[in-house]
Amino acid sequence: MCEIYGAQSINLEFEWGKSIDLERVKEVLENEDVKVLTAVHNETSTGAVNPIKELGELAKEYGALFVVDAISSLGGIEVKVDEWNIDVCISSSQKCLGGLYGLSILSISDAAWEAMENRKVKPRSYAYDLLKWKMRWIPKEEGGLLVMGRRSYPLPPPTHLIYALNEACKMILEEGLNQRFKRHQTIAYATREGVKSIGLEIFPDEEIASSTVTVIKVPKGVSDSDIVDGMLKEHKIMIAKGLRRLKGKVIRIGHMANTADQNHIIPTLAALEDVLYKFKVISEKGIAVETALNIIEKQLEI
Amino acid sequence: MCEIYGAQSINLEFEWGKSIDLERVKEVLENEDVKVLTAVHNETSTGAVNPIKELGELAKEYGALFVVDAISSLGGIEVKVDEWNIDVCISSSQKCLGGLYGLSILSISDAAWEAMENRKVKPRSYAYDLLKWKMRWIPKEEGGLLVMGRRSYPLPPPTHLIYALNEACKMILEEGLNQRFKRHQTIAYATREGVKSIGLEIFPDEEIASSTVTVIKVPKGVSDSDIVDGMLKEHKIMIAKGLRRLKGKVIRIGHMANTADQNHIIPTLAALEDVLYKFKVISEKGIAVETALNIIEKQLEI
Repeated sequence: MCEIYGAQSINLEFEWGKSIDLERVKEVLENEDVKVLTAVHNETSTGAVNPIKELGELAKEYGALFVVDAISSLGGIEVKVDEWNIDVCISSSQKCLGGLYGLSILSISDAAWEAMENRKVKPRSYAYDLLKWKMRWIPKEEGGLLVMGRRSYPLPPPTHLIYALNEACKMILEEGLNQRFKRHQTIAYATREGVKSIGLEIFPDEEIASSTVTVIKVPKGVSDSDIVDGMLKEHKIMIAKGLRRLKGKVIRIGHMANTADQNHIIPTLAALEDVLYKFKVISEKGIAVETALNIIEKQLEI
Repeated sequence: MCEIYGAQSINLEFEWGKSIDLERVKEVLENEDVKVLTAVHNETSTGAVNPIKELGELAKEYGALFVVDAISSLGGIEVKVDEWNIDVCISSSQKCLGGLYGLSILSISDAAWEAMENRKVKPRSYAYDLLKWKMRWIPKEEGGLLVMGRRSYPLPPPTHLIYALNEACKMILEEGLNQRFKRHQTIAYATREGVKSIGLEIFPDEEIASSTVTVIKVPKGVSDSDIVDGMLKEHKIMIAKGLRRLKGKVIRIGHMANTADQNHIIPTLAALEDVLYKFKVISEKGIAVETALNIIEKQLEI
């Protein structure tokens, strides 16, 4: 994507499912003139959480803007935009916030606005030029440039999605952020322990395992399609296959917003056990469900 | 927008609300190397319909691709993509099709695909690179490039909008296209005659007046805000003000999809009359409503 938009980029690759090597990031920041450091907070492809706080400290130390993809974390696990020095935090309406699909949600720091205002190359997109919003929509007292006169939108906002997001945010505040994070943690822990109890393996290192999605290695004796198609066909429960280099190697169970709940995750584990039982991967049904239920009842989290 | 995307453009300006001067278009096509001719079919800012058929003939004659914005016409008035030589026809889900806001709908000719495939400058946008869809989503037998294997989407489509559009299209086909066009024509005619019967003037030349939106000159003795705010506040009916150079000069009444209906347009005219009566622009209420009802009952159209 950087290439398409004309940015020079340095792509740091780390082993999928392993923790990011912060020393390596530091090394690059030290030796190259990096204007923007960018990272994904919660990776839905690997089920891993990246050390955003630590990366933010490095970005600050070396004077780079820090752009974070918090698409599948915001509303499910803690995102501390200011404390973690995030200049542009990008999220969306449909994942852990529990709204409908279709809105990008952004927070932008003063430094990031300044960088946009001072750019030498003109924006190459009409729709994605955020400065338009700053000038025409955001009043001065809220950090924008609109001094007087009526707000106008550069592009018409999708009203139904904004109403849905507003309602979703109210529900989040009613539940309370801490309770919401705890709920995601408990359900994630229950899901992991459940699948481990029947001999399956979690893909990422467990100390960085996500609270919003569980990625599981496909066990021997069965394919990813066997599991996913079987669960959909016989139980009407949809889970996901692996992407790109994890294609065929993992299956993925999301537990975000309203699906981070016993009433979603227990039937999912039951269906998973049923399919694995049919393919003779396991010889007994009910263990994963029991393990998970036990954790949920005790409200455990890790 | 052309400038932002790096295109050289020749902007032909015609008087707002007047018919396009086709001779002038022809002259430019004759004298310049024009690759793409583009026009708006139905203009919501002026309430005028442009001669797309005739422009399409010119585009074909001079070998230019023809790109048409049919956003507020498709589903309300006839759009003959192939007969009118339209290479790229752009519409959207929420206007006369009656779906929800948020989807762009495109038809693309072989010549337009070819131009995209042969472009020398790489696409400068990730999200708007249509070739991605041709390669990954559209099967060969439907004009795409996907020969085998599973379809995959370059960007996740918003499921709820697609379900809504599907339902909207079913409703259109149940009603029948001809009946639907006739309904829009009748309602537009009733609206125009209604407002004219109380002394208001239609903005565009009437022979090019739109069937999906009526643009009316603000009469003396009242402002656009008086009318629009009064109708909203006292009658909960929302109509629009003018845009850009028509700001303050016109008001706009949309009648598209389900709002191209007696049950929408009659209360709108009644509210308009009420506000104009209060501002003493008219001395009697009910004439516009009666005029419109008379036309609707007789199913007249022009």
